Amino acid sequence: MTETNIQEKAQAILAGNKRQITRALSIVENEGEGWVELLSTLYPQSGTSYRIGITGPPGAGKSTITQQMIRHYRAAGKRVAVIAIDPTSPFTGGAILGDRIRMQSETLDPGVFIRSMASRGSLGGLSAKAQELADLLAASGYDIIIFETVGVGQSELDIAKAADTTIVVLVPESGDSIQAMKSGLMEIADIFLMNKSDRDGADQAVAALKTILTFKITHDAAQWNPPVIKTVGMSGEGIAKIGEAIREHREHSEQHGMFLARRKKREEERIIEEVEHRLRQRFWTTERKDDLRAQIELVTAYSQSPTGAAMAIIEGVSITE
Amino acid sequence: MTETNIQEKAQAILAGNKRQITRALSIVENEGEGWVELLSTLYPQSGTSYRIGITGPPGAGKSTITQQMIRHYRAAGKRVAVIAIDPTSPFTGGAILGDRIRMQSETLDPGVFIRSMASRGSLGGLSAKAQELADLLAASGYDIIIFETVGVGQSELDIAKAADTTIVVLVPESGDSIQAMKSGLMEIADIFLMNKSDRDGADQAVAALKTILTFKITHDAAQWNPPVIKTVGMSGEGIAKIGEAIREHREHSEQHGMFLARRKKREEERIIEEVEHRLRQRFWTTERKDDLRAQIELVTAYSQSPTGAAMAIIEGVSITE
Repeated sequence: MTETNIQEKAQAILAGNKRQITRALSIVENEGEGWVELLSTLYPQSGTSYRIGITGPPGAGKSTITQQMIRHYRAAGKRVAVIAIDPTSPFTGGAILGDRIRMQSETLDPGVFIRSMASRGSLGGLSAKAQELADLLAASGYDIIIFETVGVGQSELDIAKAADTTIVVLVPESGDSIQAMKSGLMEIADIFLMNKSDRDGADQAVAALKTILTFKITHDAAQWNPPVIKTVGMSGEGIAKIGEAIREHREHSEQHGMFLARRKKREEERIIEEVEHRLRQRFWTTERKDDLRAQIELVTAYSQSPTGAAMAIIEGVSITE
Repeated sequence: MTETNIQEKAQAILAGNKRQITRALSIVENEGEGWVELLSTLYPQSGTSYRIGITGPPGAGKSTITQQMIRHYRAAGKRVAVIAIDPTSPFTGGAILGDRIRMQSETLDPGVFIRSMASRGSLGGLSAKAQELADLLAASGYDIIIFETVGVGQSELDIAKAADTTIVVLVPESGDSIQAMKSGLMEIADIFLMNKSDRDGADQAVAALKTILTFKITHDAAQWNPPVIKTVGMSGEGIAKIGEAIREHREHSEQHGMFLARRKKREEERIIEEVEHRLRQRFWTTERKDDLRAQIELVTAYSQSPTGAAMAIIEGVSITE
């Protein structure tokens, strides 16, 4: 793309042209010609949106909650974009595709944009790419950006890095809170939802979760204590309370300087991750990978130490500009 | 060091000369002259020791358990080395120094070697260095190598990568198991100890932990289900059972191919981590760090995108040999 092309594209995106936004998202996702320049042109306009992460175990009802959140924010006149992060596994494709199709109905509304993104499994890589798409959508005027993850593997934790407020969706089933703790969800939640709370055992599950959360409470006024909200995604019960909790979390974060600190930290991490990701990419050529395999064989046979192997690979390497 | 010096040093270490071992450990820890060659010379002899990681929250009694384990293995005629990983924080220095002094009594025994190591906070860096020290101690004839961590931060998780069997020490206090889960200890434990089990509530704590563990049980015969052992570190109660559990875990791992697989995976990870650590070290020169800081300012001011910033730093960089 020429400089003129990029400026034209950027103008169309800033004006909210959905077709151009869709194309630009693909260019960024696939790192097509001019993608870096396009992002840099749009970034100055990306600072006004609020980013919400929705995660939790499979089957907790995240997609339904996302749909209700879209309605909630649309009713308040906000423009909403959703970045749905799907797993690469073809086996779960069916259910998720179904969710996406249900979601399509929202996309007839010009104030709603929904984008699916395959998770690539590479640590950090997903979060970086999702954030680039979010920057683009933010620049094109979406006030609220929702990251929705499938709740499998690393992506659910990465998403907390990308969001201003992270919502963890659980259901009142034995062991769900425990699973959440084991997988690290406990650490990243700013707000908990006990979804499908019209089911038996919802009150006990909320009580159990609150008990667990008391161990986190300190007397530090700057600490945010995650609320637990009972919701029924299907009927929309509790959705307004989520909106309130997000506003409270945002105000608390802004008041204690955490909002800006979190954004700045995120930008730093994004830069460093991206630089080191590309550094590793450039380093691990086919030749060096062959070298690594040969060294692993030597180490396995105890004729080389792991440190010696590493040195043999890195020695003589120089980084120049 | 000349090649002859290295061979001489290596011979003294293989012969178990404690003074030479101490010096060599320092050379490796500080990456003094000839450290890589020394490690490579010794590595072929390092394959016979068994590596045990002991971790858990502060105050759980890890040092006392370690001392009892030393006695247990000494009584069985085994030579035992301990690598105690201390935090860098000067504030906790007192208690840990106390523990170390109590431990000194063991070091009059020629079959026991104790080494403290400051944790450096760098992700992966600690584990790599601790494993190099372990290789050296293994080569010098220690049958059992115990890694003992203070149970703070990342080091406790890193240690699982370095150990053949990982022991997590808890005490019967409300919330201890929950804390363990939250910090990821649940995932790395091969054996749980409920230490100080002469206290009130020990049976309930064991029952609660076992309940949590049932969520992990599958019908896969190759899966190891971590036992929970009640111990009283001070009196030595339950220590023999730890020895049994370690033996069972080892047999189970060997039988299902996990022992070798874990070692091979560890070697691979060590090589890659070390290569990438040095690659990053070489890359982040003072000049590039300045460049990074300047780019962060631009991004914070919204006059550059994070991706654009990363590209500006990495562009034109070439890796040659």
